[in-house]
Amino acid sequence: MSIIQNDRFLKALARQSVDKTPIWIMRQAGRYLPEYRALRERYDFMTVCKTPELACEVALQPLARFDLDAAIVFSDILTIPDAMGLGLSFQANHGPVFARPLQNQRDIEKLTVPDMRDDLGYVADAVAMLVKELAGKIPVIGFSGSPWTLASYMVEGRSTKEFKKIKKLMFDEPQLLHQLLKVLADSVVAYLAAQIAAGASAVMVFDSWGGVLSTPAYLQFSLHYMQLIMNNLPKIPVILFTKGGGQWLEQMAATGCDAISLDWTVDIGQARQKVNGQVALQGNMDPHVLYASPARIREEVIAVLKSYGPEPGHIFNLGHGILPDVDPERVAVLVNAVHELSCD
Amino acid sequence: MSIIQNDRFLKALARQSVDKTPIWIMRQAGRYLPEYRALRERYDFMTVCKTPELACEVALQPLARFDLDAAIVFSDILTIPDAMGLGLSFQANHGPVFARPLQNQRDIEKLTVPDMRDDLGYVADAVAMLVKELAGKIPVIGFSGSPWTLASYMVEGRSTKEFKKIKKLMFDEPQLLHQLLKVLADSVVAYLAAQIAAGASAVMVFDSWGGVLSTPAYLQFSLHYMQLIMNNLPKIPVILFTKGGGQWLEQMAATGCDAISLDWTVDIGQARQKVNGQVALQGNMDPHVLYASPARIREEVIAVLKSYGPEPGHIFNLGHGILPDVDPERVAVLVNAVHELSCD
Repeated sequence: MSIIQNDRFLKALARQSVDKTPIWIMRQAGRYLPEYRALRERYDFMTVCKTPELACEVALQPLARFDLDAAIVFSDILTIPDAMGLGLSFQANHGPVFARPLQNQRDIEKLTVPDMRDDLGYVADAVAMLVKELAGKIPVIGFSGSPWTLASYMVEGRSTKEFKKIKKLMFDEPQLLHQLLKVLADSVVAYLAAQIAAGASAVMVFDSWGGVLSTPAYLQFSLHYMQLIMNNLPKIPVILFTKGGGQWLEQMAATGCDAISLDWTVDIGQARQKVNGQVALQGNMDPHVLYASPARIREEVIAVLKSYGPEPGHIFNLGHGILPDVDPERVAVLVNAVHELSCD
Repeated sequence: MSIIQNDRFLKALARQSVDKTPIWIMRQAGRYLPEYRALRERYDFMTVCKTPELACEVALQPLARFDLDAAIVFSDILTIPDAMGLGLSFQANHGPVFARPLQNQRDIEKLTVPDMRDDLGYVADAVAMLVKELAGKIPVIGFSGSPWTLASYMVEGRSTKEFKKIKKLMFDEPQLLHQLLKVLADSVVAYLAAQIAAGASAVMVFDSWGGVLSTPAYLQFSLHYMQLIMNNLPKIPVILFTKGGGQWLEQMAATGCDAISLDWTVDIGQARQKVNGQVALQGNMDPHVLYASPARIREEVIAVLKSYGPEPGHIFNLGHGILPDVDPERVAVLVNAVHELSCD
């Protein structure tokens, strides 16, 4: 295991003191950067994901501009279902679409854990290349979607606001859904383990859709499978993020994860009291603040830092991915403000 | 004030004991009913809202089928902005659209409280007609959108997932947004007062979009104006509903409202402990349960009733509006299950 020069992110994950609050940004590599858009004019999204050189180049783009404390592999949460044979593509204005969504019991029963080398080796290769390029300057984060979130996309077939099919499955055939979630949890474990083996210093599980569930359903169909993942991963810091999960922080912390990522609706100070020093917290500025003036951005940074307070264990981030039409200059304001204002 | 024969709903609002848990359903008059769809083939949505005879007929439709404990006036939360001159229409698959959204300071500065008789008399007339038709059998609920929710639609111009324009206004010109919210709060007070004068026994404020805010922003831009409404309404039970507001129940209860309506993500038993008998609670079954089998619906009803517990002050409802493709037979299962299973 190599030494990381800037270890603020890893120290904060371990709830140790740091000189400045570390910051990275969800979707820090992406459409708001003109150099990313330029590359995307030549290659479609999945080609970038599946070509380690391109994924690595894109992951490095924000690091050339901003003083970020972590890199994250450039990929998508739906690579696992794609490797399972569902046929992922991205349609303009419609987001991800599966050519072969899960439609019946047989579709679910024939799913198996993908081969991490033959089917998903490109992700570990992208991690390895990024780790090599960074040469220990900052840590690299690996990631996966949560089993519930992957299952939702696989059953619905595309982005949805309603979750009609997956919820029908949940209420009418819960055992079949559990079967699906189990194979996904096993796949996520193997997938994250491969990223860790390739050099990722921490991993994050994105539960984008846990927040559409009732509390009992969240515990049973989403958190239970994140717990399975926690139980079976190599020892490395794990960040859990359930968007809309502000009500379940104690239960999330009890999984043994190292950090919880908070969306912007959560009061990070109250969250810290709730988890009582058990985990680090990541977040949680409203991504829309980056449309505001530099002065306003600094005010909001102060508000988040002050709400969290002086205790160790804070990783600054947005409460959700950066929006695609944000001015990169505003991101520089944010990153510099976090570093400058957190070392008073 | 006339006597209401079935006063379960009002008793539960007052946290008094009832023989059976009362139930009504958000959007109980609506597209899932074939008789509603038949009427809508002849009249567009706004014509139904603006014609008291039609609004009354539609509000009565679910009562002819189900043993519901309250009626609600048939209307839309966007009647106030429409009366302010923004030009409301509904486009298939796009929801509400304003012909003249608020685009600048001048648009906001020229807004005034609409005349409740000339511009919005049709709503009070629909309430009065419904009260008369029901002849005291069950109470009638009046309602309004919250100032924050109305402002969001008025600035965005249509339904949005992103809230880019209203958040830009919030971060960059908070005083201008406060000016807009103030005229909306004054309008909501006059609007609900007119519905109360017409015979509504309780009113509900729908804050559909408060849940997209951070905690400080929610308190300042949404809850503050619901508090203003609470302070200025005639004495009558008020239900507040912030979708996605499960983290702010104590603050909502502190407004002096009589009940909080919960979305389905909230554990109603934990919510009861949080508000500590200070308010009644309404809700909160996941609307998607109505796609499931009758046996499963009954199980979920039991789960919600059990979670709330034996204390008074529970009004059964869904956690959000009923979905348009639900089978009305399943609604009968729900209503009967709530009454039957709550009087053990």
